Amino acid sequence: MNDRSPTRHGAPDDVFVAHGFEEKLVNLGEIDMNYAEAGSPTKPALLLLPSQSESWWGYEEVMHLLTDDFHVFAVDMRGQGRSTWTPGRYSLDNFGNDLVRFIDQVIGRPVIVAGNSSGGLIAAWLAAYSLPGQIRAAFAEDAPFFASELTPKVGHTIRQAAGHIFVNWRDFLGDQWCVGDYEAYLKAMRNSEIPMLRQVPLPDEAPQNLKEYDAEWARAFYDGTVAQTCPHHTMLAQVKAPVLVTHHFRLIDPTTAGLMGAMSDLQAEKAMELMREAGVKVDYVDAPDAPHIMHALEPERYVGILRDWVSTLPQA
Amino acid sequence: MNDRSPTRHGAPDDVFVAHGFEEKLVNLGEIDMNYAEAGSPTKPALLLLPSQSESWWGYEEVMHLLTDDFHVFAVDMRGQGRSTWTPGRYSLDNFGNDLVRFIDQVIGRPVIVAGNSSGGLIAAWLAAYSLPGQIRAAFAEDAPFFASELTPKVGHTIRQAAGHIFVNWRDFLGDQWCVGDYEAYLKAMRNSEIPMLRQVPLPDEAPQNLKEYDAEWARAFYDGTVAQTCPHHTMLAQVKAPVLVTHHFRLIDPTTAGLMGAMSDLQAEKAMELMREAGVKVDYVDAPDAPHIMHALEPERYVGILRDWVSTLPQA
Repeated sequence: MNDRSPTRHGAPDDVFVAHGFEEKLVNLGEIDMNYAEAGSPTKPALLLLPSQSESWWGYEEVMHLLTDDFHVFAVDMRGQGRSTWTPGRYSLDNFGNDLVRFIDQVIGRPVIVAGNSSGGLIAAWLAAYSLPGQIRAAFAEDAPFFASELTPKVGHTIRQAAGHIFVNWRDFLGDQWCVGDYEAYLKAMRNSEIPMLRQVPLPDEAPQNLKEYDAEWARAFYDGTVAQTCPHHTMLAQVKAPVLVTHHFRLIDPTTAGLMGAMSDLQAEKAMELMREAGVKVDYVDAPDAPHIMHALEPERYVGILRDWVSTLPQA
Repeated sequence: MNDRSPTRHGAPDDVFVAHGFEEKLVNLGEIDMNYAEAGSPTKPALLLLPSQSESWWGYEEVMHLLTDDFHVFAVDMRGQGRSTWTPGRYSLDNFGNDLVRFIDQVIGRPVIVAGNSSGGLIAAWLAAYSLPGQIRAAFAEDAPFFASELTPKVGHTIRQAAGHIFVNWRDFLGDQWCVGDYEAYLKAMRNSEIPMLRQVPLPDEAPQNLKEYDAEWARAFYDGTVAQTCPHHTMLAQVKAPVLVTHHFRLIDPTTAGLMGAMSDLQAEKAMELMREAGVKVDYVDAPDAPHIMHALEPERYVGILRDWVSTLPQA
């Protein structure tokens, strides 16, 4: 009956480093989910979801800033950080259902969820598909609506956008880092057919967050299997809680017509239109000067936007 | 916060007919699940899962036979019977997670799960991936392990097996019955390239169970998307509860080398080997003379097998 203690199955133990909050592990059935907690159970519950190739500790500074006013939970999704790696099983539906279980088993009350990039997609997924009463509101921080699908209903496809990076992770890091050739990845990026990608500053050694990440995620996005049974337009049309959308740096590359950034203006507009037609309040913050991972790189700005929006929500 | 009452979204209301047990509906977030209940909460909980294109009431006779000794729940999965149809979203992971929620919200204690055909796959899914403590044991009644995958690790593919039927449902019934040409389906079956399929007796009018079924299921199986993020060999290797496998009529068609029946002997053996390697007890009943849907066509035989096996399980 699966009454074992949770254990870690992912990157080798010697990959990990200590952080400023205690890490805990909960057995959710298929995976053990790693998370950190800050603040008090007397405050509103807030669940933070990292971006692809990030881990929970990308929110460490944000957690310090929010600790007096929220009960904050920051998690590693399956395949991220210290949560279980699940070969062959990376999908929006599996990411989302892990969190349905986490909210049910660990948080135990309605929660505001905020996720960045793929985490923003998962925040929208939860607003659409979680158990009744679990989600108070969802913050999609620069989420790639449509632009992370292989055959989106609207606009750029994953292979006209972030797929140019993901294909290199797929090929040169590989499923569960089976290739693990970071130098070949650097070389491929520096020789990219996309002029702007060639200019992205990259560290000479694999950064900590990447080492903790199962690069099969990148293949699942590049191949489109991650959203194969979760078309974004279907999901967005079923959102049942208020949503905040922020939209950061983006540009249509004049040399390729490809998308630099999480989603195009057209895609953001269409996503919000579908959610509003579903009957929920959707707020929008246009931040074209902001980096994709605002919560980690500009934590005070991120926290200001989050607080302003939360102040407009109905009480729990 | 999705506090609406459950509503039905599937086949037109006038399709449905009354049955011998009261039908109930529970809001699970994305879908409303239809189910019927028999027996007493003082008895062991038993969850029954229909086969593809079947509805809960295929178990009606079985429910009468078990009502004194079990608390029986028989459900319609998404896209079956009176449960919600979910275009674009039929997958083993979504079917399984619906039941994780149903067990959590409605049954509320450890359960024995028994499913036929695709329902048997889902029983195995639950034994592998549900929340800790939810599943006491799983009965896979003639389940198409491997043989319902597009690229199985072992043996026949879906297109060398039941796919010969599903492709006709896909083409002539269509997603949500958008085509709905049952006569064209009959004609295609009677002209099948598979000699044995031409001899399957089929009613002149669409049977009740088929009319209640979203034929997009058939496309999801034929195209392989239903198991895209749930490889069977990965799932079987993670089973955490005792399993009963029954194996009914099957034959390798000498004219095509294709599989008639749910799975080949090789596939049944490999499935059981993987589950045993996972550390669980696996019982096997070889019933080559039995019809695929034994629980509906030979309910007393089915109940005898079920009772014998349950008597060997550890107490709840």
